[in-house]
Amino acid sequence: MAHIRNIDDVEMTSVQMEGVKGAQMAMMVGRADGAPHFAMRAFRVEAGGHTPRHHHDYEHEVFIVDGGGEILLDGAYRTIRPGDTIYVPAYEEHQFRAGDEGLRFLCLVPVERNCGGETPGS
Amino acid sequence: MAHIRNIDDVEMTSVQMEGVKGAQMAMMVGRADGAPHFAMRAFRVEAGGHTPRHHHDYEHEVFIVDGGGEILLDGAYRTIRPGDTIYVPAYEEHQFRAGDEGLRFLCLVPVERNCGGETPGS
Repeated sequence: MAHIRNIDDVEMTSVQMEGVKGAQMAMMVGRADGAPHFAMRAFRVEAGGHTPRHHHDYEHEVFIVDGGGEILLDGAYRTIRPGDTIYVPAYEEHQFRAGDEGLRFLCLVPVERNCGGETPGS
Repeated sequence: MAHIRNIDDVEMTSVQMEGVKGAQMAMMVGRADGAPHFAMRAFRVEAGGHTPRHHHDYEHEVFIVDGGGEILLDGAYRTIRPGDTIYVPAYEEHQFRAGDEGLRFLCLVPVERNCGGETPGS
């Protein structure tokens, strides 16, 4: 069913995962909404916080909403700013680190990979 | 290959389609980048402009970046504002209309539907 949800109005939950510091997440459009192909999640990372440095067998498509920081991509930390769209291919090591203002971004993942198998967090 | 592209820095092209007025698009992450499951497009609609009123056999996941306006969804025009995430299921009639400030949004589509067949514009 169609819906509209604002990222300022949703309840966010702490991301509990090894290597995470000060990160929260909310599912904006996901499998529970009937999304058949991909899921949109909103993340907030507090100043000095970070997501895990890791890789996995599915891609991310990311949009930086506000705040700032850096992303590990292609082996180097690169500055990110609002309006940036980022493609993180499958198996690519990556990490988000928030700057002094904190960081908000959308991170989308496939709901199923290779026509089968659920994506964690989708 | 991984990449970072800012929506302010890309060249946008006019959307040429029946029922469109004053809309431009840029592909941010798509099939040409190797995206295997879904594509992220940035749209800009000028004040008073609109996208076509239509429906199709694949879903949209949308994020309102800035500006404002309304979306036709569930048979009614509803106000949209920055930070809104919108799920438009397959076959649901929809249209974006920009308000006085214009409207910028991301609109994501599957690259393939039902494990086969390319999505137009992906």
